[in-house]
Amino acid sequence: MAKTEDLLVVLLDFWISPFCQRVKIALAEKGIAYEIQEEKNPIGPKSDLLLKSNPIYQKVPVLFYKGKPIIESTNIVYFIEDNWPSSPPLMPSCAYQRSQARFWADFIDKRVFEDGGKIWKSKGSEAEDAKKNLIDTLKKLEGGLEERDYFGGDKFGLVDIIIIPMTPWFLAYEKYCGFKVEEEAPKFGAWIKRCMVRETVAKALPDLQKVHEYLAMLRKMHGLD
Amino acid sequence: MAKTEDLLVVLLDFWISPFCQRVKIALAEKGIAYEIQEEKNPIGPKSDLLLKSNPIYQKVPVLFYKGKPIIESTNIVYFIEDNWPSSPPLMPSCAYQRSQARFWADFIDKRVFEDGGKIWKSKGSEAEDAKKNLIDTLKKLEGGLEERDYFGGDKFGLVDIIIIPMTPWFLAYEKYCGFKVEEEAPKFGAWIKRCMVRETVAKALPDLQKVHEYLAMLRKMHGLD
Repeated sequence: MAKTEDLLVVLLDFWISPFCQRVKIALAEKGIAYEIQEEKNPIGPKSDLLLKSNPIYQKVPVLFYKGKPIIESTNIVYFIEDNWPSSPPLMPSCAYQRSQARFWADFIDKRVFEDGGKIWKSKGSEAEDAKKNLIDTLKKLEGGLEERDYFGGDKFGLVDIIIIPMTPWFLAYEKYCGFKVEEEAPKFGAWIKRCMVRETVAKALPDLQKVHEYLAMLRKMHGLD
Repeated sequence: MAKTEDLLVVLLDFWISPFCQRVKIALAEKGIAYEIQEEKNPIGPKSDLLLKSNPIYQKVPVLFYKGKPIIESTNIVYFIEDNWPSSPPLMPSCAYQRSQARFWADFIDKRVFEDGGKIWKSKGSEAEDAKKNLIDTLKKLEGGLEERDYFGGDKFGLVDIIIIPMTPWFLAYEKYCGFKVEEEAPKFGAWIKRCMVRETVAKALPDLQKVHEYLAMLRKMHGLD
C-alpha cells in the first residue's frame, strides 16, 4: 500500500461518523478521487496516525492533502471548496450570501451535535428538555432555509453538506423522545428528502437501520438501556 | 443622523467587547470607513435594532453592510476579508495555510472565551481547574504560533485579529488566579507585545485598567466579591 504522504488526498475515516460523511459528500460533489484509511475504533484506542495528525482533538475526520493533515470537518469542507473552487462551487457567488452560509454552518456546529447528544444520553425530564432544544434548533434551521430548495438557494451547497449527515440521527432520535421531524419542521423534513435522493448524499450516508443499531449500542455502553 | 440602511458599513458595538474589537481591527487593517452605533447595555435590555438584526444570539457585534446584518464576530471578520480581499489580505495565499488559519480561529472560539469565563466566574478548586485549562490553551496557541512573528507567518493577519482582543482579559485574570501569561507562555507573551504596538490594535483595545474595572463589576454582579 502507498504511504499516506505519497497520495494526493487521503481521508482518515470512521464509517458511521456524520463528520466524515460531510467530507465524503464534499469530495464527491467536486469529483475528487481519494483513498480512505479506516480508523478502526474511534471510541477505543486511537491509531498512531490519528494521534500524530490531530493531537489537539484526536478525532476523525482528518484529510491529508499531499501528506499534510487538515482537521475538523467543517474546516475540511471549507478547504475543499477553497482548493477546488469551481468544480462546482459549493458557496454562493456573493460575499454577503457567503457570510450567511458561514453563519449557518457555524450555527449547526454549535447547536446540532450537542442537542442530539443530550437526547440519546439522557432520560426523563432531561430528555424532554433536550427534545425541546432540538426542535427549537430545527425550527431555526427552517428559518435559514426560507422558501428555498437548499440552504444556499436553488443549488445544493456547503450548508446542506454540513447538516445532511446529521439527519439520519434526528430520525433515529424520534424513537427515544416521541417526536417527528416531519411534523415539527415540515419544510426541513421536505429538504431532507430532497437531499437524500442526491447520489453524492445517498452514497455517503449509512442505512437508517445501521444508525439505529449504533445508537442502541452507544446507549448500552452508557448504561441507558 | 443617517439611517442604518443608508450607510455602507455600520457596526453595532459595545465599547469593551473583545468580539467587537475584532471587527474594528479588521476594518482598520483594510482601511474601511464605518460608523459606530453603540449598544448601550448588552447585559441589560437589548435595543430593537439588536433584537431585529440578531434574533438568534441577541449579541453584539452586528455589522451592517448596505443595511444587511452580518452576525458573529469571526464570521464578520471572514466577510471583511472576503469582501475586500486585497487591501491588504488577512489570510495566507496558500489554501492549505488558509485551512490552518481557519483551524486556529475556530480553536480560539471554542476554547478561549469559555476558559476565561470560568476563571472569573469561579472560586477555589473550580478556579484552579479553570486556570489549568487556560494555561493549556495558551500553550497550544504557542504551538500554533511556532517560531513565527504572527499566526499567519511574518504578517499580522486573521488569527492575530481573532485572539488579540482577548489578551487584556488574560492579563486581568492574572490577578484572580496567580499566574503570569508571560511565564507560562513566553512566546505568546512576546507575541502580545508585538501586536499591542500596532496602531490598528492599540486604537481598538481598551486600557487594561478599564478591563480590570469591568471585570470587578462583573464579579460583583455575580456575587463573587
